[in-house]
Amino acid sequence: MSLLVVGSVAFDAVRTPHGNVDKMLGGSATYFAVAASYFAPVRVVGVVGEDFEERHMRVLLDRGISTEGIERVPGKTFFWSGEYAPNMNDRTTLDTQLNVFATFQPKLPPHYRKSPFLFLANIDPTLQSLVQRQMEAPRLIGGDTMNLWIETTRPALERMLRGLGILVINDSEARLLSGEWNLARAGRAIRSMGPKTVVIKRGDGGASVYEEDHVFMAPALPLESVHDPTGAGDSFAGGFMGYLAASADSDHATPRARMRRAIIYGSVMGSFAVERFGLERLQNLTREEIDDRYSEFRQLTHFD
Amino acid sequence: MSLLVVGSVAFDAVRTPHGNVDKMLGGSATYFAVAASYFAPVRVVGVVGEDFEERHMRVLLDRGISTEGIERVPGKTFFWSGEYAPNMNDRTTLDTQLNVFATFQPKLPPHYRKSPFLFLANIDPTLQSLVQRQMEAPRLIGGDTMNLWIETTRPALERMLRGLGILVINDSEARLLSGEWNLARAGRAIRSMGPKTVVIKRGDGGASVYEEDHVFMAPALPLESVHDPTGAGDSFAGGFMGYLAASADSDHATPRARMRRAIIYGSVMGSFAVERFGLERLQNLTREEIDDRYSEFRQLTHFD
Repeated sequence: MSLLVVGSVAFDAVRTPHGNVDKMLGGSATYFAVAASYFAPVRVVGVVGEDFEERHMRVLLDRGISTEGIERVPGKTFFWSGEYAPNMNDRTTLDTQLNVFATFQPKLPPHYRKSPFLFLANIDPTLQSLVQRQMEAPRLIGGDTMNLWIETTRPALERMLRGLGILVINDSEARLLSGEWNLARAGRAIRSMGPKTVVIKRGDGGASVYEEDHVFMAPALPLESVHDPTGAGDSFAGGFMGYLAASADSDHATPRARMRRAIIYGSVMGSFAVERFGLERLQNLTREEIDDRYSEFRQLTHFD
Repeated sequence: MSLLVVGSVAFDAVRTPHGNVDKMLGGSATYFAVAASYFAPVRVVGVVGEDFEERHMRVLLDRGISTEGIERVPGKTFFWSGEYAPNMNDRTTLDTQLNVFATFQPKLPPHYRKSPFLFLANIDPTLQSLVQRQMEAPRLIGGDTMNLWIETTRPALERMLRGLGILVINDSEARLLSGEWNLARAGRAIRSMGPKTVVIKRGDGGASVYEEDHVFMAPALPLESVHDPTGAGDSFAGGFMGYLAASADSDHATPRARMRRAIIYGSVMGSFAVERFGLERLQNLTREEIDDRYSEFRQLTHFD
């Protein structure tokens, strides 16, 4: 089933101990869409400027992604620049230029509105709600958010959360949003705000799912070499939602078993994302590589 | 097979958001021994002062633990006092009184020297080595250490590590010891110092095993209420080494399968330890409760 994502399409500049890249394709919707494209038909809603070239759009088109919902407007594309600490975990934002994103008002092409699956990547919750309202009977809406919105636009965020089926956030965001340091309690508190399912990402600590009477914990792959963590969380969300969309009508698995597999596929896509700079690794995968890595996760966690 | 532990037997004072306890039985060897006693015959080597009462010794004796190796000498028992932050993860040491521990020179009763399994809980590495040298053909030696020894007695620590089969430490200690932030790299670096197996504990992030060509990751149980984290790491080590000692001659499982089960039993005992203050929960368990929790860990991590 098709999966619509709304979020940023951007250029990134990244400095890591492994090297620097001055300008590469990035953005939450981009990472999400490329990761999800290995599982389900993906549609993107976003905005780019005049500096967004054919070859950038090609990255999405080559993965069979529908780009009809990407508006091109006068001005420059959203630009983000960041530097990772030697531990590859802490990062500093060096520059953020909203550019065309500053006035972005997402408008869904008519046939996008019937997408059964929707993911609201990390943008202003007011815009996320604007998209929610344009949808016609979606089966599942997932979403992400960040510290900025939790701290500055709380009422709008709470409205958005009430219409969300699954919230996918990282541990520090979950703690900030819930006021609970303990993640099991944070998961419960966030579920009371709307989402039936809370997925908490912990970087190299893996990811957990909290649902009513159901908890699942997945590790991160113990990679000895991480080249660029940019986009790992969005790639995780793409693999996760992509698998849920692809398996929606599968009657071979219980909802819990599907949810668990989705988390592992998310972890698989996140692990590929960090192996190279930007989208380099993520855009050139085979289904076999994905399934092999899925098996690695089983090897990593299985006991009897 | 019997398991010998050398470490501290102490009194603790603990402040947590759930309450305060002014004086309770604690110490690394105590937590380790009580946790391990559910799996294998356990012997303790340590030292206590004149304030150590019959009822304190009873806690160990009631669990069938051999206390012959616990010396009683003039003076007061080792005392530690700490306070946990509201997040229950960060703690501040308020007071440390070494007392009789300051002049402790571990001496193994003759029949202890043939113990096939030995665990060197967190004490001065010079004392750990002193114990190593008194052993007669041990099958497996495990050990723990802490930031203090890594920073102040590095050469002695390195000598001790060369004679160790398994090092069980937490993530910050692993990073400090190896100089690597990435835990997979830290595990590899520490293995080059001696131990064939490195177990890294991550608190509520679970525990991982690093061996040559073998990695295993276990989550922590997502407990919504943690009463007192004191002793959780020692209880983990006790369950872990206890299971290894108990299953040493089992020919029904591969070494990897045994190692994985041992990590889960360690996680089980750590999860019980934090549910109540001090040893309260740990000393009153049934085998059924332990096995039920083992199944909970399987539920928490299984996917197909």
